[in-house]
Amino acid sequence: MGLLEESKWRYATKKFDPSKKLDQDQVDKIVEAAYLAPTSSGLQPFKILIITNTELKEKIYPIAKNQQQVIDCSHLLVFAGWDNYTEERIDYIYHLITSERDQGKDQYKPYTDYIKSIYLSRPEHLNFEHIARQVYIAFAYSIAMAAELKVDATPMEGFNNEALDNLLNLHEQGLKSVVVLPLGYRDAENDWLVNLKKVRHPKNEFVMEIN
Amino acid sequence: MGLLEESKWRYATKKFDPSKKLDQDQVDKIVEAAYLAPTSSGLQPFKILIITNTELKEKIYPIAKNQQQVIDCSHLLVFAGWDNYTEERIDYIYHLITSERDQGKDQYKPYTDYIKSIYLSRPEHLNFEHIARQVYIAFAYSIAMAAELKVDATPMEGFNNEALDNLLNLHEQGLKSVVVLPLGYRDAENDWLVNLKKVRHPKNEFVMEIN
Repeated sequence: MGLLEESKWRYATKKFDPSKKLDQDQVDKIVEAAYLAPTSSGLQPFKILIITNTELKEKIYPIAKNQQQVIDCSHLLVFAGWDNYTEERIDYIYHLITSERDQGKDQYKPYTDYIKSIYLSRPEHLNFEHIARQVYIAFAYSIAMAAELKVDATPMEGFNNEALDNLLNLHEQGLKSVVVLPLGYRDAENDWLVNLKKVRHPKNEFVMEIN
Repeated sequence: MGLLEESKWRYATKKFDPSKKLDQDQVDKIVEAAYLAPTSSGLQPFKILIITNTELKEKIYPIAKNQQQVIDCSHLLVFAGWDNYTEERIDYIYHLITSERDQGKDQYKPYTDYIKSIYLSRPEHLNFEHIARQVYIAFAYSIAMAAELKVDATPMEGFNNEALDNLLNLHEQGLKSVVVLPLGYRDAENDWLVNLKKVRHPKNEFVMEIN
């Protein structure tokens, strides 16, 4: 169909059918889309956790404001960003890039020195905000990929980040939760939103052309 | 082809062929993808400026660290977020939503009261960060749509936001620039990046499954 038609089809699913599960190939593709998404300077500063464990989902439920999708979904993706940029993390990916491209390991040194000069002197919370923005690109790619596969999803920001980080031991891994994405199949009969019109601002207020 | 193949095809274009231009239908679709992208609570807190004017592109060039893509691109999209959440802005879109859905105008009042209680008491810079994250979702949708159309793009954060805001009079419109996206067609012979391998972290470090 293409992204536009798929975007009209998708909606923030309010009620999943808990009996319907994704198969592994679908999950792999939704994660792969996030994996291939562009990020600033190619740093790819995040990881994805895939949660199917029932007990763990039940522990996340109150952390996510009792949103039933956390329980009823087939797979729960947690997008976790690096807690900060570090010299080691920047060097790691650029060593991988030069190695994979058969380039000298100093091929991009002027550039990595430049980004280090900015990131390593910037407060952690500003770096994390920059990291979180990159996560949102990947998050968007996963949402779009789910729609392409006719898999339903609920983009979800409304949870206690600190509590989720503690539950999943993210701090110890140098990570912080950013967003979560329950995946599954809609329970159309019990979903109040499924048949309601998607509404956006008037197009002429949204776009400004400067020719 | 689908999002995965298109994501492998796309790259951050370093050199555009300035003689090649997008047609209007392509531009419309790339903007439409951003227009349909999901945003938190459906607030859609941003606008897109489409710039083709040569003099204006030349003024943006030094603001964007002399990146040649700003000049050579066919169309330059500027994604501009609301400078803050306000009661008027929240009411405006929710009145539109209830009107388009033939619902009573207070249909979502408990929910809008709830988000107002959070947003209207939160510092402007935190609201703007939340807004910027939503912009990144739409930005990602436009990047993906361009790739679907085999249009090249350069996701670009590296510019002086304040200078661009001033040039485009964004403050007067209650907006702040977030990211820009030059669109066009690659000049493959003169683009150093076009044939280099796309590199990501090892998949087993990127994904963690908790079953």
